[in-house]
Amino acid sequence: MNNTINIAVVGLGQVGIYLLNELNTKKKDIELKTGKKINIVAISARNINKKRQFKINKKIFFKNPLEIFNKSKVDILFEVIGQSDGLAKIAENNNVNLEFEASVAGGIPILRSIKEGLATNKILKVYGILNGTSNYILSEMENSNQSFSDVLKKAQKLGYAEPGNPKLDLNGFDAFAKVRILSALSFNSKISKHKCLMEGIEKIDLKDIKIANQLDLRIKLLGISELKNGHLFETVHPCLVSKNSYIGNVSGVMNAVILEGKPVGESILQGEGAGPGPTSSALLSDLLSILRGNIKKPLGVSVNKLKSLKPYNFNNYVNSLYLRFEVKDKPGVLSKITNRLAKYKISVKRLIQTPNKKDNKATIVIITHKTSELNCNNCLSIFKKNKDILKTPVLIRLYN
Amino acid sequence: MNNTINIAVVGLGQVGIYLLNELNTKKKDIELKTGKKINIVAISARNINKKRQFKINKKIFFKNPLEIFNKSKVDILFEVIGQSDGLAKIAENNNVNLEFEASVAGGIPILRSIKEGLATNKILKVYGILNGTSNYILSEMENSNQSFSDVLKKAQKLGYAEPGNPKLDLNGFDAFAKVRILSALSFNSKISKHKCLMEGIEKIDLKDIKIANQLDLRIKLLGISELKNGHLFETVHPCLVSKNSYIGNVSGVMNAVILEGKPVGESILQGEGAGPGPTSSALLSDLLSILRGNIKKPLGVSVNKLKSLKPYNFNNYVNSLYLRFEVKDKPGVLSKITNRLAKYKISVKRLIQTPNKKDNKATIVIITHKTSELNCNNCLSIFKKNKDILKTPVLIRLYN
Repeated sequence: MNNTINIAVVGLGQVGIYLLNELNTKKKDIELKTGKKINIVAISARNINKKRQFKINKKIFFKNPLEIFNKSKVDILFEVIGQSDGLAKIAENNNVNLEFEASVAGGIPILRSIKEGLATNKILKVYGILNGTSNYILSEMENSNQSFSDVLKKAQKLGYAEPGNPKLDLNGFDAFAKVRILSALSFNSKISKHKCLMEGIEKIDLKDIKIANQLDLRIKLLGISELKNGHLFETVHPCLVSKNSYIGNVSGVMNAVILEGKPVGESILQGEGAGPGPTSSALLSDLLSILRGNIKKPLGVSVNKLKSLKPYNFNNYVNSLYLRFEVKDKPGVLSKITNRLAKYKISVKRLIQTPNKKDNKATIVIITHKTSELNCNNCLSIFKKNKDILKTPVLIRLYN
Repeated sequence: MNNTINIAVVGLGQVGIYLLNELNTKKKDIELKTGKKINIVAISARNINKKRQFKINKKIFFKNPLEIFNKSKVDILFEVIGQSDGLAKIAENNNVNLEFEASVAGGIPILRSIKEGLATNKILKVYGILNGTSNYILSEMENSNQSFSDVLKKAQKLGYAEPGNPKLDLNGFDAFAKVRILSALSFNSKISKHKCLMEGIEKIDLKDIKIANQLDLRIKLLGISELKNGHLFETVHPCLVSKNSYIGNVSGVMNAVILEGKPVGESILQGEGAGPGPTSSALLSDLLSILRGNIKKPLGVSVNKLKSLKPYNFNNYVNSLYLRFEVKDKPGVLSKITNRLAKYKISVKRLIQTPNKKDNKATIVIITHKTSELNCNNCLSIFKKNKDILKTPVLIRLYN
């Protein structure tokens, strides 16, 4: 590698522009730590004239990022625009680095920790809070007593949620993409494409947050990846966790990843998950890794040696359940519900019925003992058709 | 580097023997991740016949570790016996790796995270729970209601405290050595040799743990390193922290490190601090780093370029204080204490006097507003001579 490294930055949104500023202000520090001088030779974005937080050098601006390679010699390119797929193999075949620390929990050096700091541990499970937008919304609903849609608007104003289409954060998709990256690195396996159990926070009602609070529980969107008898189980869904647990106290835009490995035991990493600062921190750690000539394998081991793991059948996924029924307050309704549960051998741990005298309705909250996903789905299906049950029952899993 | 790497392990105590077993069982995994075969060519300890958890190969045993180099070609040597000093410069001059991830918080990949995952962040502060023995004893005193010396005995039985001489864990020295390593890596500075404020948990009384509990506080031994106006401030001392804080809930043998950096924000890493498993995890991450040909600079930047930081004058260290006085229960004693505090402009935030009618004594607990270390020392000095004050007052700083 030469002593001067030519760098291109493609994408000049919030993250790209912050990164550019960091690169400019940290040139000396980077040279101190790696012995290499960096030189920004090309930048690219859709609009050259857009208002930006920092000034850009228009002389090195390219509207079309692919033209950069015709006009400049680029050693390292930062791509901060969006999704990229199948690049690990191309990178490995060409013996170049592909780094992506910023793709999971920006402020937490989790990918590097799995690939390096915890390498050779047998990781059995990795899980955590991987979507800052969802965690902010859940925390803020609890704190402000406001509805999902009101808090979403606030999150969009504050830049914590996409102003246009926040769907991918809210339906669990973003967290799920991160789970798949964590799985691949933790288990030395291919990025899986299995059908999975994925739920976001879109349907979380303030009412459930309040009831959870009374039960000393809190709702968190968890991403979970686990090896179960050699099968890969990946999921994202809202979980009820204890208010006194570690994960129950990770609030706002914070992310947290918990890793269970042998021989290390339980390792916890927590930090800001998104935003230009934490993301730039991750991007610069990638840069330093490359400049120091560190490992070239994007996924820690050669792509050819990655395992293909069979999927765990999520029908067998076992949890205690929180169920909320909104019902007509008349004789026989409760017994219909409890009989149905009994038929499926789902045993009740706790039941709270709260009448609403005014409109002759009642709320029934049931916490069950453990049961499987399949059993639960079969059991609950019937309630959708019952005219005494006024809405589809709410189901939230308790985290074990 | 050859494809087969010769390895020596010096020290076959709990950690060394666990490491040896890990090396043997993870040979394939290491080859998968690095392309290198490892070959254990020499082991050394004082006693060949000592009872050990795993069998050792006596054919490669050396009583004197220095003889290893005469008889075997060694590429990588694991030293798991004790302290080593000034090695970074020797390693750098000879262009060989010196890795020491296991020296701070075994199960937490903190050194690698600072050198790599968070590299180029401007770190302003790093602190945490760095001594598992002390943290276990404090947690266990609270949980079991037993005295320091009883819990220490229990810790020794369980292998959490050195059976012979646990002093270096209990007087803060061990945590302090870790603080100095964290400082050097965080601030790119030389390992400091400044005189510092260092207190351990030896004098923590069950009585203070109980009173703290009533005040919704908990005592934790914190190691703290901070840049204050460009001066280095390093300290280890017991701190009162809120029971609801993150750090207040890190219990037992767990370690935790909190890092404040720009632009990353606050990063938290938690894991088991000691024991053969977590320590072996750290040692193997060092091995992989070397086998993959990663950075050679032990302290992240060249030894010649490390800064010498001036010490922060710890007389200016400012804290709220918890003071406990054991006094004769007679008129005028309280006013003597409060007058003295007033003279030094130490203002009282909270005062609780509890009489013990039986023996005509009383306990006075005072929580003060913030004051400097110097002011506090000057103020308290007089009480040591006062015959109405029956013991040297207890002082514990509140963590800001």
